[in-house]
Amino acid sequence: MNLVTIEEIRAAAGRIGAHALRTPLLPQPWATGSPLWLKAESLQQIGAFKIRGAFNAIASLDEPARTRGVVAYSSGNHAQAVAFAAKQFGIPAVIVVPDVTPRMKVEATAAHGAEVVEVPMAERESRAYEIAGERGLTLVPPFDHRDVIAGQGTIGLEIAEDLPEVEVVLIPVSGGGLASGISAAVKALKPSVRVFLAEPELAADTAEGLRTGARADWAPDRRARTIADGLRSQPSELTFAHLRAHVDGIVTVSEDEIREAVRTIAHRSRLIAEPSGAVSTAAYLFHPDELPQGKTVAVLSGGNVDPRQLADLLAL
Amino acid sequence: MNLVTIEEIRAAAGRIGAHALRTPLLPQPWATGSPLWLKAESLQQIGAFKIRGAFNAIASLDEPARTRGVVAYSSGNHAQAVAFAAKQFGIPAVIVVPDVTPRMKVEATAAHGAEVVEVPMAERESRAYEIAGERGLTLVPPFDHRDVIAGQGTIGLEIAEDLPEVEVVLIPVSGGGLASGISAAVKALKPSVRVFLAEPELAADTAEGLRTGARADWAPDRRARTIADGLRSQPSELTFAHLRAHVDGIVTVSEDEIREAVRTIAHRSRLIAEPSGAVSTAAYLFHPDELPQGKTVAVLSGGNVDPRQLADLLAL
Repeated sequence: MNLVTIEEIRAAAGRIGAHALRTPLLPQPWATGSPLWLKAESLQQIGAFKIRGAFNAIASLDEPARTRGVVAYSSGNHAQAVAFAAKQFGIPAVIVVPDVTPRMKVEATAAHGAEVVEVPMAERESRAYEIAGERGLTLVPPFDHRDVIAGQGTIGLEIAEDLPEVEVVLIPVSGGGLASGISAAVKALKPSVRVFLAEPELAADTAEGLRTGARADWAPDRRARTIADGLRSQPSELTFAHLRAHVDGIVTVSEDEIREAVRTIAHRSRLIAEPSGAVSTAAYLFHPDELPQGKTVAVLSGGNVDPRQLADLLAL
Repeated sequence: MNLVTIEEIRAAAGRIGAHALRTPLLPQPWATGSPLWLKAESLQQIGAFKIRGAFNAIASLDEPARTRGVVAYSSGNHAQAVAFAAKQFGIPAVIVVPDVTPRMKVEATAAHGAEVVEVPMAERESRAYEIAGERGLTLVPPFDHRDVIAGQGTIGLEIAEDLPEVEVVLIPVSGGGLASGISAAVKALKPSVRVFLAEPELAADTAEGLRTGARADWAPDRRARTIADGLRSQPSELTFAHLRAHVDGIVTVSEDEIREAVRTIAHRSRLIAEPSGAVSTAAYLFHPDELPQGKTVAVLSGGNVDPRQLADLLAL
């Protein structure tokens, strides 16, 4: 399969420019063991890395298609990313969300000027395609698209630039867009870097897939057990091919380890991580024996956590 | 009085180099009203801006004095800053703390390799001077020193570089080292910028002093009422002269406003702020009528908050 190239990722960086934040790579002097840096994508304007891929995908459309607008289905960070990016281009965006989506998330998406369409959970994907067809909009998928992967890959460019001596990169994995992009960038620029994924035990389809060499299919109910609600997707053929090509290993973490990592990141790193964003730090904290030693970057992919859940996570 | 110059601040930036983090200036798209950026000093390695002044003060010592080592009295961020900076120079540091200091803070300071001396609260300053005399150490004061002020001023350089179109800068004030340094830098580089201070109502000696034109002296017990435990000092002659020369106004905030600002920063900006660090955002959120409109930078000075206090602040 034709994998995303470093040239595509560099082109994405050029398109994205200052429309996404160049997030800081933050040294963590409290870390014992391998020296640790956090790549804090939680500090993006929408609180997650998804803005990079969404912006690159929209920027890559030809002018007439872009002007007509875009549609996406997501209740999470991808929804806000597409809404936020569309607003920067001044184009219409329709976001299809399950009708069980918390008010707060619906409002955050609408606040970026997007039209939010609420449908029963099972219909969200089909409804999005329907709307795309009816209105001539382009569907921006959450991860299964080269432009989206290339956009997320710009994180890898920044890591390699900001810490040229990096030895290990730890990335949360779900649909695999983030991990595909970063690993493609890092391996192209610095093949000696070891790329490891972090995944919840309760949604460990990628770990199983990489072990057997073929994508594992876990039922949505089974994946939905993890608190890491951004990590309940599974790789596509395209992203799985990237992971097979570029990834050196994968570590699974327990729910308690994820919770403890959220607390450590708050108390020691002074950052809010959503559970999905904390799995890479959980791998670092609780599974050092499964990881190579050396200068380590953990990608903190997002910080969008409901105030009530945050209060629960940080309660003593 | 001879105020700290932009040349001294530039020299400080040269000395500090990469030993303190160039903290990110983070856009806050959720902000209504004036566009808002947070200068997140909470992301410094020690969780607060104090590393800048401490490092510059130690770097400015002559070689023999520096080699003998330094002493400081503080139970808060200055203690960790001096310990952390001394470690980078490989020199001895003694930190004198009140014997009521929480274990966690004592351990954090000791973890940087400093010798921690616990004494009764009333004796900490005198004991620090005694130790300095006995052991030939140099005392690094928390704010009343040009090199400390110049070090904190490097924040102003970074703001002016990263957001050349900045119009308003909001700074927490206590002893005034931070506000003196930043205002000196910003006013030298961009005289049109309006510099405003933010102070707790319950420790509003600086507001009173700037109103009357002479330093106000509030009893320590009176200042100790605020939850913002890093804002219980008051300006020295040196820092007060800077504030009189450079500051355009001051806003006082209530305890409830400080608490609400900590919550907003956690939920919307995904950052942990200590109450002292949140007062500038509290001024932005709750006192817009007292502030000029325009592109606003609020300095988030620190993020060191006890886990129990954080849990209480974020409880719903």
